[in-house]
Amino acid sequence: MFEKSPLAPVGVPDMPSIPGVRVAGMAAGLKESGRPDLFMADLAAGTTVAGVFTQSACASAPVEWCRKVLAGGAARGIVVNSGNANAFTGKAGDKTVAHTVRTAAQLIGCRQKEIFVASTGVIGVPVPQDYVGRMLKKLHKRLNPSAWPDAAEAILTTDTFAKMATRTARIGGTEVTLAGIAKGSGMIAPDMATMLSFIFTDAKIPAPVLQTMLRRTADRSFNCITVDSDTSTSDTLLLAATGQADHPAVTSAGGRVAAEFRAALEELAVDLATQVVKDGEGAQKFVTIDIRGAASDRAARRIGLAVANSPLVKTAIAGSDANWGRVVMAVGKAGEKADRDRMSISFGGIDITRRGKQVADYDEAAIERHLAGQDVDLSVDVGVGNGAARVWTCDLTHGYITINADYRT
Amino acid sequence: MFEKSPLAPVGVPDMPSIPGVRVAGMAAGLKESGRPDLFMADLAAGTTVAGVFTQSACASAPVEWCRKVLAGGAARGIVVNSGNANAFTGKAGDKTVAHTVRTAAQLIGCRQKEIFVASTGVIGVPVPQDYVGRMLKKLHKRLNPSAWPDAAEAILTTDTFAKMATRTARIGGTEVTLAGIAKGSGMIAPDMATMLSFIFTDAKIPAPVLQTMLRRTADRSFNCITVDSDTSTSDTLLLAATGQADHPAVTSAGGRVAAEFRAALEELAVDLATQVVKDGEGAQKFVTIDIRGAASDRAARRIGLAVANSPLVKTAIAGSDANWGRVVMAVGKAGEKADRDRMSISFGGIDITRRGKQVADYDEAAIERHLAGQDVDLSVDVGVGNGAARVWTCDLTHGYITINADYRT
Repeated sequence: MFEKSPLAPVGVPDMPSIPGVRVAGMAAGLKESGRPDLFMADLAAGTTVAGVFTQSACASAPVEWCRKVLAGGAARGIVVNSGNANAFTGKAGDKTVAHTVRTAAQLIGCRQKEIFVASTGVIGVPVPQDYVGRMLKKLHKRLNPSAWPDAAEAILTTDTFAKMATRTARIGGTEVTLAGIAKGSGMIAPDMATMLSFIFTDAKIPAPVLQTMLRRTADRSFNCITVDSDTSTSDTLLLAATGQADHPAVTSAGGRVAAEFRAALEELAVDLATQVVKDGEGAQKFVTIDIRGAASDRAARRIGLAVANSPLVKTAIAGSDANWGRVVMAVGKAGEKADRDRMSISFGGIDITRRGKQVADYDEAAIERHLAGQDVDLSVDVGVGNGAARVWTCDLTHGYITINADYRT
Repeated sequence: MFEKSPLAPVGVPDMPSIPGVRVAGMAAGLKESGRPDLFMADLAAGTTVAGVFTQSACASAPVEWCRKVLAGGAARGIVVNSGNANAFTGKAGDKTVAHTVRTAAQLIGCRQKEIFVASTGVIGVPVPQDYVGRMLKKLHKRLNPSAWPDAAEAILTTDTFAKMATRTARIGGTEVTLAGIAKGSGMIAPDMATMLSFIFTDAKIPAPVLQTMLRRTADRSFNCITVDSDTSTSDTLLLAATGQADHPAVTSAGGRVAAEFRAALEELAVDLATQVVKDGEGAQKFVTIDIRGAASDRAARRIGLAVANSPLVKTAIAGSDANWGRVVMAVGKAGEKADRDRMSISFGGIDITRRGKQVADYDEAAIERHLAGQDVDLSVDVGVGNGAARVWTCDLTHGYITINADYRT
């Protein structure tokens, strides 16, 4: 276990019960450390579900299962193990998923296609196919509406803190609640970073509407973060809505009735996503990058991620160096339109370049003070249009190399 | 100046004169260190030229000039300064280029559109527009056919060794000679890595044919290397053919008459490109990655570069860790077809996985010995087609962080 990230939030949110949701976490013996490694959620009948998954061409067996059953739009259970990714395990991996799903469906009393699964941890090591199923029988007895800390703990790998968040919103006059957990980028060699997040609400929203909302939310939260540009085979984001709240019907993702819910969902997703960044390997600084003036919002996000993924930008920030030349370079390589001669760059709100040229008398001391802090803001106007995006990342430090190179598997 | 790379070649190649080419290098005062920083080549009348440039949307003023005059296909001079990239300098940068070109054309006695320029070094700091021109007058007097070491030295920034290579080939029965220099990824904050290479030959090849040859060669050499995934605003590769050799006409890039020349050109480009990798910041290991079984050669190269750019793969190699799970992850994120269940991965020629599963009894000790060395070979068959590519990179070490984060501009 590595030391707790210096960027970890102070305190833990007061997590609410969500009508229709019971959760549990336990140590099932998949992690050699003996730490919690199995999570289960039981969802009331009528729960709708939405999901967003890794784009990897080498997706894990659990991701392939989830993609298949998501079309049904209904969920009654979620089972997640850490300690073993069940990825690159061939037919054995599919059998483990099948057995886990069958057992969970029996325990909950639902159809198999209403069970969603995720795994994170060691790659290429098969789990005995009945192992998770056997453990689930014990875990099922522990289900309760308030075990969020156990749940959040059980999905971690080498994360240094548990990640939870909650929000409320009104739909019509009715208050609904959202609660979510996430895990971030950790590494137990020979593992790889994996992003998992599970969000629950008692709102009543049809699955296709929920899916549209989740996709849009992901594009403004989880798809706007990066630690090291490496994409996992297991990334999974699920949103389950139990429908236990009594509110006016939500019939479209864009309508006014769900406006507050959408905002709360995005806030919660950004909260969890930025917690993931704050637990990035070796992270000493949390970096917010605003891109404006791009050809489209999509172009702005691509430019933002190019800046956020640039090792040269990230090491400069680690070194408290307002190296705007590296920012220009990163914008240039993003493959999107940018106008060198109209570009403006600022750190901590202070312009260093304006319309393609260095500001002669900018306040270097103020920028140095800003860069010496834990929260760094970088803003770029690329000078071609109205597209904007915000992305989040961390710096690249000796800690990252130490975690990933200095010990053997 | 950082310590010489442990991967630097032993000895310096015996560089030949190329009929029609004279070169010179000197310290012109652009580098604060006082080291050589100005290079000039004088090319005989009738020299054809081909060029390949950065894809950056923020290309430097010299790159924009070269792109414009390349259409003419004729070159009489090349002027390169290090110590200042003349990038992000607005109209002042264009004026510096114009003055340099005008002066060089006067000295050589040619048209301005026959002069090619490149700059590498600090970003955003204008050079007084007549500075390079004034220095050129001195440098012009030093031109001679054998000053390759001076030339190679004058284009470096924080490279730790000068990069030169030479080859010969026969066209028809006539021997022609190729000589090239390059600079690699170096950093003097607030600079950025820049790749420059200039290749010369006495072969007689029409410009359009030369351009096709150079484009293909770049795709199998300079476009197959990466140190840290950051693309410079100034990357420039030029090939100048003086036509002083007397050989059968070369009328197409693909024909049999130039087969040996093409092979020698590719060999020389790979030689220089791999020297650049071997001088990668913090590099302790030189890594050759072979991808087979891809949908196309282009797909194979994209997969290879995804592996080569993955910080998790690069840190694993730094740590002598045969972490094939990270290789699977990197293949998966490349955005190209790959079949998880048919993938094979080997280090140093020893299979670790075959057709999607770990080899039960692979020789771990032999792989450990291989990874402990300075030359690491990694091979992946992605199991979908016949596309193949080879790419080169270096490991990611504490040295990279130290160079890029641990000192201020």
